[in-house]
Amino acid sequence: MATATTSLTTQDTEFLRGLAAQLRVDAIRCSTEAGSGHPTSSMSAADIVAVLLARHLEYDWGHPKAPNNDHLIYSKGHASPLCYAMFKAAGAITDDELVHTYRRFGSRLQGHPTPAIPWVDVATGSLGQGMPIAVGVALAGKYLDKLPYHVWALCGDSEVAEGSIWEGLDRAAHYGLSNFTAIFDVNRLGQRGETEFGWDVDVYRRRVEAFGAQALVIDGHDLEQVDRALSAARAGAQPTVIVARTVKGKGFGEIEDHEGWHGKALPPDMAERAVAELGGVRHLTVETRKPEPGAPAKIAAPGTVTLPRYEKGDRVATRKAYGDALVALGRRPDVVAMDGEVSNSTHADEFARQYPDRFFEMFIAEQQLVATAVGMSVRGYTPFASTFAAFFTRAYDFIRMAAISRANIRLVGSHAGVEIGQDGPSQMALEDLAAFRAIHGSTVLYPSDANSAARLTAEMADLEGIVFMRTTRGAYPVLYGPEEEFPVGGAKVLRSSESDQVALIGAGVTVYECLKAADELAGQGVTARVIDLYSVKPVDVETLREAGRATGGRLVVAEDHYPEGGLAAAVLEALAGDETRPRLAHCAVRGLPTSGTPQELMDAAGISAAHVAAAARQLVKGD
Amino acid sequence: MATATTSLTTQDTEFLRGLAAQLRVDAIRCSTEAGSGHPTSSMSAADIVAVLLARHLEYDWGHPKAPNNDHLIYSKGHASPLCYAMFKAAGAITDDELVHTYRRFGSRLQGHPTPAIPWVDVATGSLGQGMPIAVGVALAGKYLDKLPYHVWALCGDSEVAEGSIWEGLDRAAHYGLSNFTAIFDVNRLGQRGETEFGWDVDVYRRRVEAFGAQALVIDGHDLEQVDRALSAARAGAQPTVIVARTVKGKGFGEIEDHEGWHGKALPPDMAERAVAELGGVRHLTVETRKPEPGAPAKIAAPGTVTLPRYEKGDRVATRKAYGDALVALGRRPDVVAMDGEVSNSTHADEFARQYPDRFFEMFIAEQQLVATAVGMSVRGYTPFASTFAAFFTRAYDFIRMAAISRANIRLVGSHAGVEIGQDGPSQMALEDLAAFRAIHGSTVLYPSDANSAARLTAEMADLEGIVFMRTTRGAYPVLYGPEEEFPVGGAKVLRSSESDQVALIGAGVTVYECLKAADELAGQGVTARVIDLYSVKPVDVETLREAGRATGGRLVVAEDHYPEGGLAAAVLEALAGDETRPRLAHCAVRGLPTSGTPQELMDAAGISAAHVAAAARQLVKGD
Repeated sequence: MATATTSLTTQDTEFLRGLAAQLRVDAIRCSTEAGSGHPTSSMSAADIVAVLLARHLEYDWGHPKAPNNDHLIYSKGHASPLCYAMFKAAGAITDDELVHTYRRFGSRLQGHPTPAIPWVDVATGSLGQGMPIAVGVALAGKYLDKLPYHVWALCGDSEVAEGSIWEGLDRAAHYGLSNFTAIFDVNRLGQRGETEFGWDVDVYRRRVEAFGAQALVIDGHDLEQVDRALSAARAGAQPTVIVARTVKGKGFGEIEDHEGWHGKALPPDMAERAVAELGGVRHLTVETRKPEPGAPAKIAAPGTVTLPRYEKGDRVATRKAYGDALVALGRRPDVVAMDGEVSNSTHADEFARQYPDRFFEMFIAEQQLVATAVGMSVRGYTPFASTFAAFFTRAYDFIRMAAISRANIRLVGSHAGVEIGQDGPSQMALEDLAAFRAIHGSTVLYPSDANSAARLTAEMADLEGIVFMRTTRGAYPVLYGPEEEFPVGGAKVLRSSESDQVALIGAGVTVYECLKAADELAGQGVTARVIDLYSVKPVDVETLREAGRATGGRLVVAEDHYPEGGLAAAVLEALAGDETRPRLAHCAVRGLPTSGTPQELMDAAGISAAHVAAAARQLVKGD
Repeated sequence: MATATTSLTTQDTEFLRGLAAQLRVDAIRCSTEAGSGHPTSSMSAADIVAVLLARHLEYDWGHPKAPNNDHLIYSKGHASPLCYAMFKAAGAITDDELVHTYRRFGSRLQGHPTPAIPWVDVATGSLGQGMPIAVGVALAGKYLDKLPYHVWALCGDSEVAEGSIWEGLDRAAHYGLSNFTAIFDVNRLGQRGETEFGWDVDVYRRRVEAFGAQALVIDGHDLEQVDRALSAARAGAQPTVIVARTVKGKGFGEIEDHEGWHGKALPPDMAERAVAELGGVRHLTVETRKPEPGAPAKIAAPGTVTLPRYEKGDRVATRKAYGDALVALGRRPDVVAMDGEVSNSTHADEFARQYPDRFFEMFIAEQQLVATAVGMSVRGYTPFASTFAAFFTRAYDFIRMAAISRANIRLVGSHAGVEIGQDGPSQMALEDLAAFRAIHGSTVLYPSDANSAARLTAEMADLEGIVFMRTTRGAYPVLYGPEEEFPVGGAKVLRSSESDQVALIGAGVTVYECLKAADELAGQGVTARVIDLYSVKPVDVETLREAGRATGGRLVVAEDHYPEGGLAAAVLEALAGDETRPRLAHCAVRGLPTSGTPQELMDAAGISAAHVAAAARQLVKGD
């Protein structure tokens, strides 16, 4: 087929019609065989995908990681039958795999696409996420890779109701992402009936334009219009949204534009009629245009990283140490950072000043903040995203999905717990440890002092999966020397003796309360071990077990977090199956906090030294 | 002062100037006295609030719950100095309380507004939330209360970057909320520098109009313009956004429009100069226009609710039972429902058909879904919001804030866990129990069968705080008779004997696996107790304790959830402080799930009967 810049010949059109019919037929076949899936949402976009695949997508299917490959993200992940039918048409998978493994246990062709498939960048299926992530990939393309690949996101019309779509489009326009195109497949019907705007494509056009992108409104079944729009999108100087009016179930008259056919496989008899109406089973293969070989993404070997050093006893906030360490890590060209308009609080601003080319301001839009990090991870960068720990809850669904995407992202949340003081509960992360611990394959870190925070920041760069570090607002004395190591999965025993009667376990700010409590207890003749559980997940089971053994099974856990699912749960889960299990007293934030000084609030919450000591005494006395 | 429909007299203007100066002075005084706070973000909006308070707001300060009171929500919650200065100007609080308690421990005047103050509807401070909640209040006003009150939301320009703002505005337009006005205080400066659009108010205008609202662009310091815009907003037939160009720090020349003054109290010497420049301390009091007395919100006494009944052994999905029970609850006029475009999956559609006037479609926008529920709670309704359990993670920050708002909302999440099968991990809630348990004051329910689901749905209606119920996709046999009661905080012992060697603890779908495991174990001579822990929070400590005692401390917990923070953590936390603590074997979803049949996936995850039985045998053998 001729290049995308020429107009369609009769022969081209003929071929594309056949290809689109094949995509529809295959979407029907695989879903009917599986007994579930979304054929009708696939059929509406089949013409668009046919033209995109045959004439516009630049992709080397044999080398999915080729640096100049375009990226195509099915933001409407439920159109997986179309996605996988496209893989067959590209010669990447066999008809047999498509039709006989779709949605089956053990198959990589899952109900929604995941990177278990080499040609899939990220998991989709939670709507309104693929497009914002595509914006992140395009940011990497334009500002970091500086390679000519284009990023395409296929969106459903229903998902455009998600605010995250508009966060993404806004940032695409702000950063002038001419290498980004979203396609809105406006098939009018959502899951339970008509969408908010039906076929009123003009509403979408107005919104897209108001958000700063080029809008191209087309008939999504007119191959010429589709072809021209895709060419214009690639050539455009702005980000583009192709607003394509389509028909759900297009190609099978019995169900075209009918309600009640969302997410339903056709019964075998209907599938048979549909396949016949669409001209039967085909096995066309498309030669996708291969991109220029191009240079690999410009991620050179890591430079030498010299971490900041802090003197014991100096008062330094862990958030400041994070900023310092991030600057140090900036020597590595793979390290990039982004923030949600609070970089002067998280201290990411220090990186922004030193490495402005690798810093991306996401403004107050935490979903896009995380989406950008995921997009950067797709391109092999090492993203650090920061905001207040409390505000990562805004992006919890994106974080959940990033785990399914096997993305490697580092999230650093400052201003955690009641320790923040006067600003009050809206700014206090008090459920973040529970939320992040529950994310699949996550790592959760909570350093107490500046040297440990700097060390852990450096380690985060080389960790896989979702890595969260909680930093503290206030400045506290440095506890450790700059040479001390803090392996992930470890813990530090800050005080111990042969005769420990109880172990006080804290992390972050409560480590200081535990130390003070140990002093108080010592004055009362009670010897206490103090443990800094800086690695909340994975947790140091051996150190906990040993503490249980040494103290006759008496542990106090103090955490600046609500009682559920945080530090204490980490300890309890780790030891739950042991033959001997320590008894645990738990100091946590049980009431709804207010404003006040950090010390007032820690006292009121019952997590300050006096409460830790009282809990310890109670445990010891209980014998 | 004359009514809002007349234009300003010279005398009016004079008074308003003084009032605005007082608001600025008081914002400075209270924050300087506190040593923290956001005076400059307050000063930009002082003229708007002065005119609103003196001429447009209809509010009976002596009766904050008066049915016809307007609602004014500070979406930019950090402008709390302005909010509280307004309370002083309205005569609601004293100058002394304002200046000497702001941000102090024990004061209701916290760093960000919370409903600890009677004139505050909801907690704000996580940006982009107050406005969407105001949309929820306006929905109640127009469709349920049918009262003439107006809902005002004061927004910062930075927070307009949140997608949730656009979800809210879109739904306001969709529902034709002429009783809703948002005011964008475009003071150009965010926390760490200029906002994305600075003073380009035209960008905001275009976006607002594209989203279907009336946009009124004004100079936010021109009292006449402010007055006319507020009048037009109230009179408009559409939702309105007043886009007000303002100056941060307005009124104190030294810092007007200067960077570096976000979120900083003025030092005492500067404060003194500022107060002098603004004409000194004033104690003006405004007579706010009182609304017509009006009828109370039309929430009549509950009708008789007859819950659905299911026969033991019939296969019924708990999500279906939820839908049936919600229809039954519909007899109560306070019960309202909303869904995120999946009502035919959650079964909320049954309520929508029966009570269309009390059902609100939020489309695929889970943040607005929860915001609407919170808004309905503000007006005293009993909202039930539903979507897939996984997708409530999209609104986790809204849920966190709703707890601080002391909102009473009921969230019902269907399609939880690997049990959903073929759709794959994007649709599987596997961290929801941990996330919801960590919400302050939450209740977390997870019924196994249809009768318990129906009973718990009815109980939810009368619970306070954030209540979450997890329902299951598949249909399973009814286990309990329709008369059985399921108190929150209880558990059901489904099997027990004098000689139980181990207790199998499940909830939801794993209850069935525990029952099968008990059968298998019985065949092998092992007697197992089976516990249905339908109330995950609060949990039935006594039943767990008794199970530990009876079985020699052998518990198996099986949950369709990731291992962290869920059912096992609930059990462990409950028993952590006991003198004797059972040993716990834990069957949970440890790998990343894929597609497959429910049974295949439960087997692969290690949570099916065979695994539960194996874990039990191991515990028993371990003696």
